[in-house]
Amino acid sequence: MGQRTTEPPISWLMHAALSRPKLISLAAGFTDNASLPVAEARTALNQVLRSPKTGQPALQYGITAGDTTLRQLTAEYLHNLDTQASQSFSSSSLVLEPKARTRTKDDNEKVYSFERLLITSGSQQLLYMTTEALCDEGDIVLVEDPTYFVYLSILQSRGLRARAVRLERDGLDLAHLESVLQSLKRSGELRRVKMIYLVSYFQNPTGVTTRFEKKSAVLELLKKFEPAAGHTIYLLEDAAYRELSFPGRADPALRDQDAQLVAAKRSEDGQRVPTIPPSALAVPGAADRVIYAGTFTKPFATGARVGYGVLPEPVFTAVKHIKGNHDFGTANLLQQLFVRALASGLYGQQVARLQKRYAHKARVMKLAIKKHFPSAVEWWEPEGGLYFWARLPRNVSTGLKSKVFQAALKNDVLYVPGEICYADDAARRKPNHEMRISFGNASEENIREGIARLGAVLRKLI
Amino acid sequence: MGQRTTEPPISWLMHAALSRPKLISLAAGFTDNASLPVAEARTALNQVLRSPKTGQPALQYGITAGDTTLRQLTAEYLHNLDTQASQSFSSSSLVLEPKARTRTKDDNEKVYSFERLLITSGSQQLLYMTTEALCDEGDIVLVEDPTYFVYLSILQSRGLRARAVRLERDGLDLAHLESVLQSLKRSGELRRVKMIYLVSYFQNPTGVTTRFEKKSAVLELLKKFEPAAGHTIYLLEDAAYRELSFPGRADPALRDQDAQLVAAKRSEDGQRVPTIPPSALAVPGAADRVIYAGTFTKPFATGARVGYGVLPEPVFTAVKHIKGNHDFGTANLLQQLFVRALASGLYGQQVARLQKRYAHKARVMKLAIKKHFPSAVEWWEPEGGLYFWARLPRNVSTGLKSKVFQAALKNDVLYVPGEICYADDAARRKPNHEMRISFGNASEENIREGIARLGAVLRKLI
Repeated sequence: MGQRTTEPPISWLMHAALSRPKLISLAAGFTDNASLPVAEARTALNQVLRSPKTGQPALQYGITAGDTTLRQLTAEYLHNLDTQASQSFSSSSLVLEPKARTRTKDDNEKVYSFERLLITSGSQQLLYMTTEALCDEGDIVLVEDPTYFVYLSILQSRGLRARAVRLERDGLDLAHLESVLQSLKRSGELRRVKMIYLVSYFQNPTGVTTRFEKKSAVLELLKKFEPAAGHTIYLLEDAAYRELSFPGRADPALRDQDAQLVAAKRSEDGQRVPTIPPSALAVPGAADRVIYAGTFTKPFATGARVGYGVLPEPVFTAVKHIKGNHDFGTANLLQQLFVRALASGLYGQQVARLQKRYAHKARVMKLAIKKHFPSAVEWWEPEGGLYFWARLPRNVSTGLKSKVFQAALKNDVLYVPGEICYADDAARRKPNHEMRISFGNASEENIREGIARLGAVLRKLI
Repeated sequence: MGQRTTEPPISWLMHAALSRPKLISLAAGFTDNASLPVAEARTALNQVLRSPKTGQPALQYGITAGDTTLRQLTAEYLHNLDTQASQSFSSSSLVLEPKARTRTKDDNEKVYSFERLLITSGSQQLLYMTTEALCDEGDIVLVEDPTYFVYLSILQSRGLRARAVRLERDGLDLAHLESVLQSLKRSGELRRVKMIYLVSYFQNPTGVTTRFEKKSAVLELLKKFEPAAGHTIYLLEDAAYRELSFPGRADPALRDQDAQLVAAKRSEDGQRVPTIPPSALAVPGAADRVIYAGTFTKPFATGARVGYGVLPEPVFTAVKHIKGNHDFGTANLLQQLFVRALASGLYGQQVARLQKRYAHKARVMKLAIKKHFPSAVEWWEPEGGLYFWARLPRNVSTGLKSKVFQAALKNDVLYVPGEICYADDAARRKPNHEMRISFGNASEENIREGIARLGAVLRKLI
């Protein structure tokens, strides 16, 4: 029976969060409720549905790859994101990879062509379908260690194997990646390696952002091993959190001078501007090797599931056919909502609002952690996204059956145990002393109270 | 490489229909544009998004199985559909299966429990995920001959085999089903048979509706062969067109006395009421064996992709986990749209409008076919759904490369060649002399003109 798919932890955690009202969930990756763009979505939908002429196409089937206007707007939007990122790199004292500027106009027209862009039901569906297109049972996908746990569920359910590559504070450990590839080559398994999966911005679960030069180096390594593999090894870049970067810290009450995880510079007028790296699409030669997964969902409204992928051939066509079998196209009504939101500027305004909002909530969480967590706990402050990552002493487990997790549940606070974010990989012992703590969904008050509860548990059990 | 998924014909046809404005497409299964509920959807969405309190949950993630209120409303709605159908059967002179009334209240509470109901992105996604859950590569699914061609694409892309069972004007040929099962038992392949897939109402492509007693007999046969198979053989009932039944023929101008495909009766006040059979869920003992796929999409707005499934354990849980990996839940905003539309009565009103609209368009097509098609063409008139089915003489091919298809394209009219609706099955020669002709999307004028063009081609080439 094809029923090997097991309960994904996210389902359990989401359900727990929704069904226990007293519980403060710092676990689920839900986004901030109060800043959901209710009025904005209403405005955009009223525009879409204002007349039969505009409304009928939105309520009718579309084509499988997605609405052409949305694909064009998205391609342009993505090109702008990468161009802005490259420019901020080029004027920064922390230029990491000047090659990004040496690409020709033709390169860009190819990479950011809307014809390579596919609209999906959230970026999650793109991850699933890409994996379905590229991998057969028993194939190997390289993943960050730790990585997005729902992606591990996809691998498990499809009978695929993960090989874990160590993650550093600025992205993959390149030496380890090379040694993993070497070892797979030696064992004759390189031909089973179909891709590497990176959550490159404010990673889930660690908050780590991969430096641009590391993306470039990863692609070089893949290219180097492809002859031995006998096929292209793709880089699947999951940029789900990319736009949730924190802006310059405007609130003096919360300002401090802690070390930054992401390189930062000051613009000409002295404003602090975080420099978010360009995507792997901006690496020269990436066009045939990089699959980019993005989403409009997290930076706008998670209840309107629209994501997108940029894919080279033959993957684009394979994924489009699979999409034809899954659902022959994402709901047109939602696609039209984003056409309006992007074209009118509503989308950009909401992203800017969210960036400030999450930056503030992250600060609230940081102050609470500083106040309540014992000093034996190491924690990583993110520069964007939704998550803090905390490491307990190695001998203190945080797993679902651990004393820490059970005591936290009893105290009505929930986190994501770090161990579920680690692939099964016999090459190393799976760490079980970490936790992902989200400030995305909880109110400021609940962040303070939840961290206080968690801190009390940790002070008692460490 | 896992890229065996080939171009689904629907993608090509949809694309052709959208990209060639002069073409009259009687091919694509698009629904009627003019009757799309633009104002109704706007009203419902304005209610959903009228305040942060109601709007925020719609713009936030939900749980994987779907919104609980929508699941409850859907379960109740489905129960009502089956109850009404059973009652109309019981008061009819054409009672086919009185057992439907003998079920206990407990049976119904089990079968129609919202806890067995899963919300999906259209019923298409339910078909995909159910097949993914139940079947491993090389497994066998029994299908009607002909059947829904996108389902055949799913089987092909997942490396599954189809065995075709002859279709009669009132559903499966039961004797043939039994002989196919016997033959699979003899060859030792019965253990690879995981389910039978039936499009039971106004079938795509033939318009055939399966009689209730045939559903019951199919389940009996499956039960009989299960011991030899070593597992449950499921019946996957695809009811996508169920609600698109034609009401009593109100328009005297179009009335006539042609033979009916579906048993009909007159209600007490003399009104003709078509009796739509209950679903297979209403067969006693169906609870553990029937998977029901329904949709809100076709009877309301195809651009708002919300479908649902009723599934027994362990299939429900397996499909829910798979859904967690695909997209962890259908867009909440669309789900809330249907909560409003169902609860307010908007949905029911729209279905009633559509039934009249399609009945009228079917009549327009019928009159045009009578006028323009040569008498050598046999055609089946439906009692619901979106399709006429036409049979040319056996020696006249209708396939994509045939003279008929090419001449039709040249005359700017498109139909679905019958051959793509037939599974690959070495046990019989694949018929290639039929066509599916849709009145769903084309305007009345285009139906007349399209059939005139097609008729001219047929008169010339037969």
